[in-house]
Amino acid sequence: MPVQDAYKAAGVDIDAGNRAVEQMKPAIRATFTANVLADVGSFGGLYALTDLPERPVLVASTDGVGTKVKLAAQLGRWRSIGHDIVNHCVNDILVQNARPLFFLDYVAASKLAPDTVAEVVTGIAEACRAVGCALLGGETAEMPGVYAEGAFDLVGTVVGLVSRDALLPRPEAMQPDDVLIGLPSSGPHTNGYSLIRRIIAGRDLGARLADGQTLADALLAPHRCYVAEIDRLQAAGLPLHGLAHLTGGGFIENIPRILPAGLAAQIDTAAWAVPPLFGELLAWGQIAQAEAFRVFNMGIGMVLVVPAAAADAVMAMTPGALPVGRLAARDGGPAVILR
Amino acid sequence: MPVQDAYKAAGVDIDAGNRAVEQMKPAIRATFTANVLADVGSFGGLYALTDLPERPVLVASTDGVGTKVKLAAQLGRWRSIGHDIVNHCVNDILVQNARPLFFLDYVAASKLAPDTVAEVVTGIAEACRAVGCALLGGETAEMPGVYAEGAFDLVGTVVGLVSRDALLPRPEAMQPDDVLIGLPSSGPHTNGYSLIRRIIAGRDLGARLADGQTLADALLAPHRCYVAEIDRLQAAGLPLHGLAHLTGGGFIENIPRILPAGLAAQIDTAAWAVPPLFGELLAWGQIAQAEAFRVFNMGIGMVLVVPAAAADAVMAMTPGALPVGRLAARDGGPAVILR
Repeated sequence: MPVQDAYKAAGVDIDAGNRAVEQMKPAIRATFTANVLADVGSFGGLYALTDLPERPVLVASTDGVGTKVKLAAQLGRWRSIGHDIVNHCVNDILVQNARPLFFLDYVAASKLAPDTVAEVVTGIAEACRAVGCALLGGETAEMPGVYAEGAFDLVGTVVGLVSRDALLPRPEAMQPDDVLIGLPSSGPHTNGYSLIRRIIAGRDLGARLADGQTLADALLAPHRCYVAEIDRLQAAGLPLHGLAHLTGGGFIENIPRILPAGLAAQIDTAAWAVPPLFGELLAWGQIAQAEAFRVFNMGIGMVLVVPAAAADAVMAMTPGALPVGRLAARDGGPAVILR
Repeated sequence: MPVQDAYKAAGVDIDAGNRAVEQMKPAIRATFTANVLADVGSFGGLYALTDLPERPVLVASTDGVGTKVKLAAQLGRWRSIGHDIVNHCVNDILVQNARPLFFLDYVAASKLAPDTVAEVVTGIAEACRAVGCALLGGETAEMPGVYAEGAFDLVGTVVGLVSRDALLPRPEAMQPDDVLIGLPSSGPHTNGYSLIRRIIAGRDLGARLADGQTLADALLAPHRCYVAEIDRLQAAGLPLHGLAHLTGGGFIENIPRILPAGLAAQIDTAAWAVPPLFGELLAWGQIAQAEAFRVFNMGIGMVLVVPAAAADAVMAMTPGALPVGRLAARDGGPAVILR
């Protein structure tokens, strides 16, 4: 039997991946910087290391976008989920002050639709290009029996670079009264979606929230990337003691990851207007506000720890930024205190 | 409602990943070289670049192990599937003459069993350690509704290093009469499993093959890693013109990726004894032998292109290696000719 027929009988279209690759080649090539040495489809992607800083350190992170993929699939929002995975990964290494060199993606489903895969990867390529990151490689896999009917998963890996001397956070520099500055999120980003999907089950995704967005738009808004903001602050020479990316675990689990043992973060939860989507999710799901800060970003995607003297200058340069709290001495209590 | 309860109602155990991480920390830390700067659980993994060669090039690859995960889950062979993903990725960058610096993994399922995840990641760590590669990061994700009941997926990303001057393949150096040397595989490695699963459906996995192995053992044998063989040849100064890793697409699609336009690979299919497993799979699936070379490695996991004068020395240094063919001028015919 010809292999094509045997695969067909096994429910696998072995050419789907190749057809998708052809469709997305132009978008991928548009991300290639002069450092990229091989074309799409080589065994491994090649990235020449040039202009290295003193004591170069690679920073790498792999992540998925969680069950936001289920909502994206349900609503056919393929391109924005590509932005989600890139921005999520890029923010994860930004908090160590690394800037992305390259990205690799993995898209798998029970059945691959080449058009869909091409849309996802085009979104990935757009988000990569926006931060000067090469989309160096990727894999598409059709896996009948592993994925649920109509579902897919999306995994990304970013590799970035920083000088060891510029690494963040700098817990040894943090002091009581350092200001916590929040940068707005665009929505839940890529966290809490298993919970969200349960909460919204049976609701009309076309219904409008108090801010005029439909529930679908609010839920699928792509994860915001914070590289431009941090670049601007550093170009101006403003000091940063640390950055916390508010992903799974929200304020409660992410902020302590960058603090020294003797300091706690006091969060003034009344300091900003929590976006309507979060209010509705808490109401519908009967989730206590204090608990919500353990799951959601509540409208703040990135928290900067800044010396008090620099706080005004940081906010003046960063549209949307606002003070969300302060550091204070920690006397045996929790590392994050909500007020 | 406390968030833990809300997640429980959504069918997600948010602590499963953390419990798995605790179990596998010792194995992960055992892979850490002096280059690794951060401990398990940092935002991104940190890898200090030291002892860089002239004109350093990073080589990166992301891949999965395909539906071999279904068989592994069915048979509870968690640790060996960890070896599969690492060795697959490491071989993929070895063909460009890169050696791995670090690896990142992603394990996702509808429901995460911490013991199982810890076994998979321990296998990953063992395989990383065997090639001096740091297991720098990873992610576990519980995704109800995305994965089929009881199924999981496993994705790996490797980042390696090579000098631009040492990159392989070197198609410009290849000549007619260069010898193709095959290194034995341990089985189908990680390719063709959707087809294999269809072929073996309903068969007794405990049945013995002609070589005495059970069908289960033959099917789940972990992907072999070829770093040690190539290291030994290069340490002895033996010349290599190229390496082809026989993954999905077998001989027919992988060997042409390293050849110049004017040369074809003539494969002498009678030169080695195809392992019994492949013979059975072809018989049971009624797959023509010529077609099988497009799917399976047929017992050869890596093909080396070597100048004729060096072939005997290469084989003498490499247990199990054997000549599987030659390069010849290509006159408009296919790039791979099976004889």
